[in-house]
Amino acid sequence: MKWRHKGLIDLDEWNREELDIFLQQADYMEELLGRPIKKVPALRGKMIVNFFYEPSTRTKVSFELAEKMLSADVVNWSASGSSVSKGETMKDTAWTLEAMGADAVVIRHGAVGAADYLSKKLTRASVFNAGDGTHRHPTQALLDLHSAWKKLGKLDGKKVAIVGDVLHSRVARSGIKAFSKMGASVTVSGPETLMPKDIQSLGASFVSDTKKAIEEADILYLLRIQGERQEEGLIPSLDEYHLRYGATPELVKEGKVLIMHPGPINRRVEIASEVADGDNSLILDQVKSGVAVRMALLYLCLGGVRA
Amino acid sequence: MKWRHKGLIDLDEWNREELDIFLQQADYMEELLGRPIKKVPALRGKMIVNFFYEPSTRTKVSFELAEKMLSADVVNWSASGSSVSKGETMKDTAWTLEAMGADAVVIRHGAVGAADYLSKKLTRASVFNAGDGTHRHPTQALLDLHSAWKKLGKLDGKKVAIVGDVLHSRVARSGIKAFSKMGASVTVSGPETLMPKDIQSLGASFVSDTKKAIEEADILYLLRIQGERQEEGLIPSLDEYHLRYGATPELVKEGKVLIMHPGPINRRVEIASEVADGDNSLILDQVKSGVAVRMALLYLCLGGVRA
Amino acid sequence: MKWRHKGLIDLDEWNREELDIFLQQADYMEELLGRPIKKVPALRGKMIVNFFYEPSTRTKVSFELAEKMLSADVVNWSASGSSVSKGETMKDTAWTLEAMGADAVVIRHGAVGAADYLSKKLTRASVFNAGDGTHRHPTQALLDLHSAWKKLGKLDGKKVAIVGDVLHSRVARSGIKAFSKMGASVTVSGPETLMPKDIQSLGASFVSDTKKAIEEADILYLLRIQGERQEEGLIPSLDEYHLRYGATPELVKEGKVLIMHPGPINRRVEIASEVADGDNSLILDQVKSGVAVRMALLYLCLGGVRA
Repeated sequence: MKWRHKGLIDLDEWNREELDIFLQQADYMEELLGRPIKKVPALRGKMIVNFFYEPSTRTKVSFELAEKMLSADVVNWSASGSSVSKGETMKDTAWTLEAMGADAVVIRHGAVGAADYLSKKLTRASVFNAGDGTHRHPTQALLDLHSAWKKLGKLDGKKVAIVGDVLHSRVARSGIKAFSKMGASVTVSGPETLMPKDIQSLGASFVSDTKKAIEEADILYLLRIQGERQEEGLIPSLDEYHLRYGATPELVKEGKVLIMHPGPINRRVEIASEVADGDNSLILDQVKSGVAVRMALLYLCLGGVRA
Repeated sequence: MKWRHKGLIDLDEWNREELDIFLQQADYMEELLGRPIKKVPALRGKMIVNFFYEPSTRTKVSFELAEKMLSADVVNWSASGSSVSKGETMKDTAWTLEAMGADAVVIRHGAVGAADYLSKKLTRASVFNAGDGTHRHPTQALLDLHSAWKKLGKLDGKKVAIVGDVLHSRVARSGIKAFSKMGASVTVSGPETLMPKDIQSLGASFVSDTKKAIEEADILYLLRIQGERQEEGLIPSLDEYHLRYGATPELVKEGKVLIMHPGPINRRVEIASEVADGDNSLILDQVKSGVAVRMALLYLCLGGVRA
Repeated sequence: MKWRHKGLIDLDEWNREELDIFLQQADYMEELLGRPIKKVPALRGKMIVNFFYEPSTRTKVSFELAEKMLSADVVNWSASGSSVSKGETMKDTAWTLEAMGADAVVIRHGAVGAADYLSKKLTRASVFNAGDGTHRHPTQALLDLHSAWKKLGKLDGKKVAIVGDVLHSRVARSGIKAFSKMGASVTVSGPETLMPKDIQSLGASFVSDTKKAIEEADILYLLRIQGERQEEGLIPSLDEYHLRYGATPELVKEGKVLIMHPGPINRRVEIASEVADGDNSLILDQVKSGVAVRMALLYLCLGGVRA
């Protein structure tokens, strides 16, 4: 099998067949994670720079573990926002990283399109998008797909309900695209103040009755509510949010629907503890898939199999 | 030899025989540290997360060196206090770390009981306590024991005087326990404002005359004085503290007593430079033992010898 | 070949023959950097602490990549300025690092003489100066030499014009010394407010007409202008600086002069984009040389060839 991609900016670049190959590869990697000695020499001698302009402990640690399990060498470059606020500077930084011998750059940036811009400036090094603005978060989408696919066998014909702050969520944007590509249908629900105007164009439909959206879904995908949404007046209060839109045992009856969440979860806000810790919760499967899909991604793009 | 412990929360868990085995193991590790090539493959493929909620450069660097000398893979997770202030969040973080494949978590936390809590939430990964609140600091106690034991051959019957801010010190609490377990007797001295009320229950006796406490001791263990104790009115002034309780050449006569300190030292506060740099100072031995005991600990708990 | 130096504080310590040997060694390392698998086991089992008291992303990442490509183990120790402001504390920190088993310490510090002081306190571990105050930055000088030498074949008889804020620049100080030692002659130019009084004693001559200085030069070495120089009244405005002292296409005619800059560059301040990205720019060569010279330095001083 040959892999034609050098890095990953957006899942748009991948076709369905590639997604299928990828999920299989992530499975191999997850199997590796269960062994007493997890390390494999696949990326020995490769230099990876984790370039995080925004704090993101989970995504960063997940990437770092994936890189180290593949025996890559890892350098963390945490940039302060100010020194890199202009695209001009980012171009020079990109060239600097490449001149220093980096084989790959994993970038998280607050600005939409940052990873894309970086990849266009680099001629040799691979770029992996670890989240750009409210735009895209393709490795999150991959881990979501992987954990759901592992559980359900296939995603064709499945129904996914994404509930919460869709407006501010790159997770939702990337997730809708990914689940749709795998043959699932996606509805979104939550406070109308937190719904984007262009929801149809993203490939999802809005269901105002959250209860109904959940009842019909195979997967309930909850989004994290930031406390500041209350101050901004976008939600009445966290308690009220919990009662109306949170995954409570009342709403998520009989355990028919799988529960997903990108983490970290806000217990008693978007999710009740009983639900988060229940048998149908895939939340920790997602975390585990996170390391596995990042290993698969780095291996396919940087290892020996690229076309 | 089989080792029955998976991690280390508190030295209470260990019996005297285990302490003896451990100190021997730490000796082997210290010998390794003197070689030109220090690295051994004992923990190759093991993933260790250093999870420091409190800044602690020395303990962190000491653990990190120990981990790397054993060929473990290391990820540093520095949490900002705010995002992890609630136990609830820490539980989720613990599960996240385990789901990501961490084999061990080294945790430093400002809250008493944090490491214990974490270890109860994890089913597979080992937890090592790198200091919790004013409570416990077991690897500090182990390095104290190791450096004293190396120097004196045995600790049975020896007298240890701990002088300084016992009230705020997890080092003192863990040290009293550890020295007592090895057969030494411990007295504490210093300003009465800095003595805990429950000193007897900790296994030490209070001697108000610091000079006398030192004269009778084989080991003088000095505690670091924080500058803020002066503002809080707990000590009159740093200069006055030095004159009354500091290890001055006058107090520490004829080099009969060994000098220990957890570091970093405040020269001219709790210790005079001549004493810190004198022939009877074990302060740098303690630092060296620090890496050796952490290597021994990680090796025994994560390596091939666990029962 | 035997190498007699254990570390590097200042290039003064090296003679011309050693510089020649070194540049050749850096060439081998640069060749390594071009390979798909860059890692070599030269420093396996060596423990290197990167001790950065001042933020310096580029130098730190460059050192870290060099260390990892040579298979050394790396621990980053980022000190907050306050806790280490006194030499006293630095001495204890140095002893602590050595007692912990560090084979080498790479230090960046805001105080002039910090690396020198550290090296005198350590008996076993090597010290590498990654910049001290406005004083010295020897690895910057080495990378400057290497990239110029690679391009020009030899530096004897060549003319170097250093333009900009010479007063506040350790890059300029170290560069003048290094280029002179290789047989080049150095002139400096720029606003008189930014020229040091002792320019002659540094081994360079001042040319007030920047245009003329550039016309006669083989290498135009530009220094970074800090925005705060404007607030301090040392330069009229960044725009005006650009017009009078910046490397504009008008000033740098016909591509006769090579362009160098320590980075990060300020486009439209000390350098125009056309010049920075032009065929005669060595700026990215310098970055590449940066990793190569640090690899060569660590290899010669810590590897098997030291006398």
